[in-house]
Amino acid sequence: MLKVYGDVNSGNCYKVKLLLHLLDVPCEWVNVDILKGETRTQEFLAMNPNGKIPALELDNGEFLSESNAILCYLGDGTEYLPADKLQRARVMQWLFFEQYSHEPNIATSRYIIRYLGRPKEREADLDARSKPGYAALDVMEQHLRTRQYFVGGRYSIADIGLYAYTHVAEEGGFDLSRFEALRTWLGRVQSHPRHVTMNG
Amino acid sequence: MLKVYGDVNSGNCYKVKLLLHLLDVPCEWVNVDILKGETRTQEFLAMNPNGKIPALELDNGEFLSESNAILCYLGDGTEYLPADKLQRARVMQWLFFEQYSHEPNIATSRYIIRYLGRPKEREADLDARSKPGYAALDVMEQHLRTRQYFVGGRYSIADIGLYAYTHVAEEGGFDLSRFEALRTWLGRVQSHPRHVTMNG
Repeated sequence: MLKVYGDVNSGNCYKVKLLLHLLDVPCEWVNVDILKGETRTQEFLAMNPNGKIPALELDNGEFLSESNAILCYLGDGTEYLPADKLQRARVMQWLFFEQYSHEPNIATSRYIIRYLGRPKEREADLDARSKPGYAALDVMEQHLRTRQYFVGGRYSIADIGLYAYTHVAEEGGFDLSRFEALRTWLGRVQSHPRHVTMNG
Repeated sequence: MLKVYGDVNSGNCYKVKLLLHLLDVPCEWVNVDILKGETRTQEFLAMNPNGKIPALELDNGEFLSESNAILCYLGDGTEYLPADKLQRARVMQWLFFEQYSHEPNIATSRYIIRYLGRPKEREADLDARSKPGYAALDVMEQHLRTRQYFVGGRYSIADIGLYAYTHVAEEGGFDLSRFEALRTWLGRVQSHPRHVTMNG
């Protein structure tokens, strides 16, 4: 059985949980506590030398890391990753957008507030992430105004990758009220019959 | 003919140039000057609403952005992107590592030094990127100690993605002298008979 090493409250880990649930693939979840330094132990670094969760242990004992690469692996050959070359590349485009323009601003702000308790010395850091975080949300909003899902009119791992931290963006201090198309899309993802919540 | 909108000195743009050259695919290069605000014009934002180079214009008039998604698109079906599902996912793992753990530290330091002329008010920022930048180089060094290339023992878009900013890491203030396996790998990439340099 697949093993996921992660933290249920981490959006990057939730991506993997959500896709596995949609695909009805069972997995064993091994909790890893970042704040206790559990991603920096020799044991964990042997699984992922980059010291980040999630890490996926395959049936053959090999490990795969980077949440969006895990989505590609698990989604490959399923309805959640298109077979068409350009459509696949568009899914990748949104997944790279997520890791470069979205996650470092929205997820990191949430981490500073929710995990670290918003320490005073991180206020300038939080402030610096606000403008690029809203810019990422603007890009998503503009795209979704004329579309149901990010790529090819159907639910894909691009949506899963972006949903993970967007649906908890308010925990990072981002006000979603003016993002109408984006909120409609969040609801669309949530209404999937096999949807599972972050803590569900 | 494919059109690439980019800046020859940007590593993200060089990735696309290098792969196209390896594949012997002709393209038209349209120069875009970030410092002159050319990625923020209405015309450019119509091509990539996220306002970043490179942007690839396909023969059908559509645009694709995110350098590593462009590598996936151009590499798909060639020897530079394995067909095997796990090997593909490993290529993706390294490309996401590049965009999350490598580029924001190594490329951004180079940008601050080379493009912005190392302004005093960015010294703290540069300093903050040093430790995670070296950590990314350490992860690469460790991986390459027992391998010729990043994935599956052969040159792939994972190598192209990582080569782009690693070979100019010293312009970002990173000293590569202690990274022996990494320097050997840089030489291996450069020795490919169809290699092209950043400005070549």
